[in-house]
Amino acid sequence: MVVQEIAGFVEEIRDLGSILFLKVYSNGAYVQITVKKKEAPKEVLDAVAKLTRQTAITAAGEINDNPAVKTGKEMIPKSLKVIAVSAEPLPLDPSGKTQADVDTRFRWRVLDLRDPKKRLIFQITTDFEEFAREYFINDGFIEIHTPKLIGAPSESGASVFALPYFGREAFLAQSPQFYKQMAMCAGFGKVFEIGPVFRAEKSRTFRHNTEFTSLDVEISHIKSFDEMVSFEESWLVYILKELKAKWGETVKKEFGVELIVPKTPFPRISMKEAYDIVEKAGVEVDRSSDLSSDGEKALGEYVKEKLNHEFVFLTDFPVSVRPFYHMKPEGDPSTTLSADLLYKGVEITTLAQREHRYDMLVSQAKEKGLHLHNIEFYLDFFKYGAPTHGGFGFGIQRVIMQLLGLKSLREATFIPRDPETLFP
Amino acid sequence: MVVQEIAGFVEEIRDLGSILFLKVYSNGAYVQITVKKKEAPKEVLDAVAKLTRQTAITAAGEINDNPAVKTGKEMIPKSLKVIAVSAEPLPLDPSGKTQADVDTRFRWRVLDLRDPKKRLIFQITTDFEEFAREYFINDGFIEIHTPKLIGAPSESGASVFALPYFGREAFLAQSPQFYKQMAMCAGFGKVFEIGPVFRAEKSRTFRHNTEFTSLDVEISHIKSFDEMVSFEESWLVYILKELKAKWGETVKKEFGVELIVPKTPFPRISMKEAYDIVEKAGVEVDRSSDLSSDGEKALGEYVKEKLNHEFVFLTDFPVSVRPFYHMKPEGDPSTTLSADLLYKGVEITTLAQREHRYDMLVSQAKEKGLHLHNIEFYLDFFKYGAPTHGGFGFGIQRVIMQLLGLKSLREATFIPRDPETLFP
Repeated sequence: MVVQEIAGFVEEIRDLGSILFLKVYSNGAYVQITVKKKEAPKEVLDAVAKLTRQTAITAAGEINDNPAVKTGKEMIPKSLKVIAVSAEPLPLDPSGKTQADVDTRFRWRVLDLRDPKKRLIFQITTDFEEFAREYFINDGFIEIHTPKLIGAPSESGASVFALPYFGREAFLAQSPQFYKQMAMCAGFGKVFEIGPVFRAEKSRTFRHNTEFTSLDVEISHIKSFDEMVSFEESWLVYILKELKAKWGETVKKEFGVELIVPKTPFPRISMKEAYDIVEKAGVEVDRSSDLSSDGEKALGEYVKEKLNHEFVFLTDFPVSVRPFYHMKPEGDPSTTLSADLLYKGVEITTLAQREHRYDMLVSQAKEKGLHLHNIEFYLDFFKYGAPTHGGFGFGIQRVIMQLLGLKSLREATFIPRDPETLFP
Repeated sequence: MVVQEIAGFVEEIRDLGSILFLKVYSNGAYVQITVKKKEAPKEVLDAVAKLTRQTAITAAGEINDNPAVKTGKEMIPKSLKVIAVSAEPLPLDPSGKTQADVDTRFRWRVLDLRDPKKRLIFQITTDFEEFAREYFINDGFIEIHTPKLIGAPSESGASVFALPYFGREAFLAQSPQFYKQMAMCAGFGKVFEIGPVFRAEKSRTFRHNTEFTSLDVEISHIKSFDEMVSFEESWLVYILKELKAKWGETVKKEFGVELIVPKTPFPRISMKEAYDIVEKAGVEVDRSSDLSSDGEKALGEYVKEKLNHEFVFLTDFPVSVRPFYHMKPEGDPSTTLSADLLYKGVEITTLAQREHRYDMLVSQAKEKGLHLHNIEFYLDFFKYGAPTHGGFGFGIQRVIMQLLGLKSLREATFIPRDPETLFP
């Protein structure tokens, strides 16, 4: 007989008098612990007497397959220890049988996440990130950690958190944009970073948080904007292929979603066409601005239906909706060499070739009405030679939300932050 | 003939009249570009006329081994393009021939890092992190991203950055401590995180920054503090073995340092013994406090000399120098189940078993004089059952500094932050 160990939280206690059943999740599966009161060791009975739901326990005994019990696995414990008793009543029931309202769930995220299905989201995220990095590292990338405390607002100055810093003002980075470009100017060749970014946006929507995990990529010596598009395609195909192999069946079972490895090249639609398609679908369009969230959704549905694809690159963005550092195609000063990538109707990436020539950068910043003083430290990166380069940013939680068909970004975030939420 | 491409910065220009030599670092090696002015295409000559040192160029041609040139590799270019001209004069010479002062180097970090030897530090860091993660992922860990914006100062309230947050006050996380413990209470089993942490410490030393990259680990269901110690040992052995295989020779050549795969178990010395050893070595000791930086150094030398080891665990820390959440051994309320790990005489890790019982946690917090209000959200994690657990934190740049024998943390940091430095 092989004595095995169980360590977990007691999800269910059913006391039938002479016999008592516990349901515990341990080591990736539910196990039923069966305590026959006449036969069980005194130590086990003493421990069992103290139990409340969600109490942390350990138990040892033989685990047997038993088709008669719901979990399929049963242990008659030789020993059972209470590690920490749970208070009563519980603010929510993590078994998933009754769903608490969203605010209660996130207030008591520690209990909410005891549902193995919710934890699964983070196991899949772990692999998503690891496959992403595998691809980069096999391709010679350097991983960087850029500063989150910065001396000037990183882009427009809007939506930036500011804080006192030893008698000065510092800001929290909204993206690693400027510093990953610096890595290019320093000769790093190809870099990636996975880290937090901060947006002081007051809106509270299903797809915005004030803090999220950004995956950033920047590549030197590119010959064209297309090279970046192809790179992101191949990279995503790699990740989705690996994810499908490992998690495809589980995701289908638990989330009802089919993981699809996308065909390359992904469809590309110019912004002009996109406005037309969205308008035809009955969604209002402002042609001087990005697509609205409804617009993206309509376009996603169009692409899925007409082109049978979950991804689409939106291209030929007008200069007016893009930052000053995006490169313009030669001979066309009104558009940019940039694209947005939508996944199931939600933007997950902005990608661009960057302007690497100092004089052009300065003049494009002026065109946008930027105060050169604020970006002087950035312009300095380009003073002493700079390679051609491009890159993209990628919100991890947003992609996972789309991948698994979750209702909001919060579900894919361990501890979400929005304007109203700083706790837990 | 195979036409190859070079893309990089011009490190040297030697114009001998009829012939001109360029030294360019491209694709992991230096190449000499030789332009014979009588034979070169006009396009190449036009480009060459514009060159200044550090200008970014691309060139195409055959690359041949040529023992007569210093780099060993030579290209006679078929084409040569100026990508972005470098301004003159350069604020520093990144070739490594003359070393600028530290302030100039970090002011112009973008040029400083064009020295391939400095960039190497970040290639090695990339692999360090990847090997570290490999070990975790093969062992069933979940990667988490805890919030850096938090509602209450994470530990003591000292050295914490505060900022306005939609009419409230928020703080920057000094460590993911509380949240990685929350993951344990949520049933995550084993987690790791690599991310920035923030310390508002005014001191400017070789081993402190206001922002650095922390690697954090937390493991549930441990039976003893020793289990954590063994885990960290095996993990470090794995990383150092892989690093030595990949980088051992390079590190020896470039940094003059022998990478040593440590023997397990690492030596362990109690704090009492450590005070004695350090005092005997002639360094002043305050027995109510941690070892000083000089004390750590002296102890590191002792361990290297007497025990022939680069690592040492300091154990049996008195309660007075440890935070409230460290567990105390049964029957001894004056010490903690915690250790510091020193590497070549510098502390790189604090490791501990945590107190997981709600009532004990509350009483230990009170003993330390903490305001329970500030840590209520944290105590709440433990209300509804909690497993035994332990973990450690690990400053990536500090370990790399020690690994490569660098003079300061800054050398291992892409863009360092200290009280005086917010730019670049």
